Amino acid sequence: MAAKTRVVTFGVGVIGQQVVKEIIKRGSWLELVGALDNDPKKVGRDLGEVIGLGKKLGITISNDPAKLFSDAKVDVVVHTTSSHLAKVYPQLESIAKHGVDVVSSCEELSYPYIIDEKLANKLDQFAKEHGAAILGTGINPGFLMDALPIFLTGPCLEVNRIKVTRKMNAGSRRIPFQQKIGAGMSPSEFKDAIEKQKITGHVGLQESIAMIAAALGWKLERIELGEVKPVLLKKTVKSNWITIQPGTVTGLTQTAIGVVNGKSRIELEFVAYIGSEEEYDMVEVDGVPPINMKISPCVHGDHGTIAMLINMIPKITNATPGLHTMKDLPLPAAVLP
Amino acid sequence: MAAKTRVVTFGVGVIGQQVVKEIIKRGSWLELVGALDNDPKKVGRDLGEVIGLGKKLGITISNDPAKLFSDAKVDVVVHTTSSHLAKVYPQLESIAKHGVDVVSSCEELSYPYIIDEKLANKLDQFAKEHGAAILGTGINPGFLMDALPIFLTGPCLEVNRIKVTRKMNAGSRRIPFQQKIGAGMSPSEFKDAIEKQKITGHVGLQESIAMIAAALGWKLERIELGEVKPVLLKKTVKSNWITIQPGTVTGLTQTAIGVVNGKSRIELEFVAYIGSEEEYDMVEVDGVPPINMKISPCVHGDHGTIAMLINMIPKITNATPGLHTMKDLPLPAAVLP
Repeated sequence: MAAKTRVVTFGVGVIGQQVVKEIIKRGSWLELVGALDNDPKKVGRDLGEVIGLGKKLGITISNDPAKLFSDAKVDVVVHTTSSHLAKVYPQLESIAKHGVDVVSSCEELSYPYIIDEKLANKLDQFAKEHGAAILGTGINPGFLMDALPIFLTGPCLEVNRIKVTRKMNAGSRRIPFQQKIGAGMSPSEFKDAIEKQKITGHVGLQESIAMIAAALGWKLERIELGEVKPVLLKKTVKSNWITIQPGTVTGLTQTAIGVVNGKSRIELEFVAYIGSEEEYDMVEVDGVPPINMKISPCVHGDHGTIAMLINMIPKITNATPGLHTMKDLPLPAAVLP
Repeated sequence: MAAKTRVVTFGVGVIGQQVVKEIIKRGSWLELVGALDNDPKKVGRDLGEVIGLGKKLGITISNDPAKLFSDAKVDVVVHTTSSHLAKVYPQLESIAKHGVDVVSSCEELSYPYIIDEKLANKLDQFAKEHGAAILGTGINPGFLMDALPIFLTGPCLEVNRIKVTRKMNAGSRRIPFQQKIGAGMSPSEFKDAIEKQKITGHVGLQESIAMIAAALGWKLERIELGEVKPVLLKKTVKSNWITIQPGTVTGLTQTAIGVVNGKSRIELEFVAYIGSEEEYDMVEVDGVPPINMKISPCVHGDHGTIAMLINMIPKITNATPGLHTMKDLPLPAAVLP
């Protein structure tokens, strides 16, 4: 029997806590051997208590990667701390320097060459030197708006244009998600929140566009990131958290376009608001043959992200050292408990 | 600039001829350096004339692989001769012994461990010894009923059951395809054709089931191959070739079930007849989260197969020696002219 894969979770936030629960369910092939977090309210406490298991796991949350990786033999880290490459870069080095592989939910890491090519190449080089394989993934970016449309061009002889739409009814999602999309704000509060970057919209659109372009061999001229716009409805809508009257923001919409040879060839649209009657993920490949795909309802974001983090573990631990992206690794597949 | 990939086509039939045309379009990265076929009516003639280009290509169709691979430096063969592993096995050895990689449309090669595990392992060993990478692919098997559902389980934490349906209106397809599904036969002629194996139905259902099970780590107890059944309609239907009256066969339907732990967990349904009002490819993953996907209209079979053969070339020439299947190679993606 193959040895179990020894995992550490780096980040014990909302996603990290659910990752821990899923790792524990997969005791047949995964062994949780440590937890890292910087939050002083969590450091030094038992992981089981912090994530509300009602029992100790015998794993003390640490804020000292160097000590953890020196003390324990670790194969891979599931990393869930931040959306931003610059912020996670030192964390990734602190893991990779020990030759430990990483699967991270960091959105900008999903295709980091577009946000900071120099830093991405530096990370790739560092990982190669230290024998670590690194991947940024999740449901979006990482699957719905990049890996999935890339995969769907497999049966195409020609591709003229790709459009991907994700439309979510935010009403049944986590309350922090509903807050993150501005639900319940007045239009002027929304405008202010955008200006002060309290609302940033979905992070990952430019990474997804860049990954698609790279996979198809398209030279991107530029990415046009549309502004994040509020959605206002003429009816009253309710979520599991809030009731919203007409004239109040129910969520947001966002688009991004990849321009190749003067033409808009990649178009992404992200729509999330309370009260949306339809929920779907759609990919339209204008090509030969045309491919019009719809997943309905849309894939659950949190479940999807946690699953991608877990399911890509065997792919990254089998990969060569260096920085990888979803377009270059074998097909994701569910690795069940 | 990277050197072009040097390709030989093995098989100059319906699919092989279209493959040649697509290779020629991709002169920026592919170079056609030879053609093999056993048909005495084709051997010795110029490839361009045989495929109806109206001009010579300067490539003479050969029936001597040993001579061709000794004379020319070849990177990869696109192989389109037969659906059956036992029949293509000696052909694959004749290629692989020269260290040349193969992408083949042979249906049984898509997951050959289910039809003849010993022969599949022998081929894997032979390919490894001679430094050749081998893949069986196409639209189905190779994509729609195996790689696609596997890929769609990537965002799943649990998978209970997978159902895949391909429903085609055969009325606009190639005439040989319409004949292959029994269109125009009386019910007794159809029955007779099935008994005499003149109609075999779709080849690939058990390969697809076995690939899905292997990807998800499910131990297959057995595969239940349903009988190939004729489709009879109450209305008159027309194709580009034939008008079919009520009571006459318009096409066929076929199912296959993969049983795991006493439960039907993988279900494939293939439906192709003239006059079908709907055309789609559908994947239903009963899991957490559930994934219900529909591509409509269904993906064009010939275009899809030719595209998969071409688009997987860079994946197989970059792969390690040995026998590969779609579940273990990086995501397919269109590699455009």
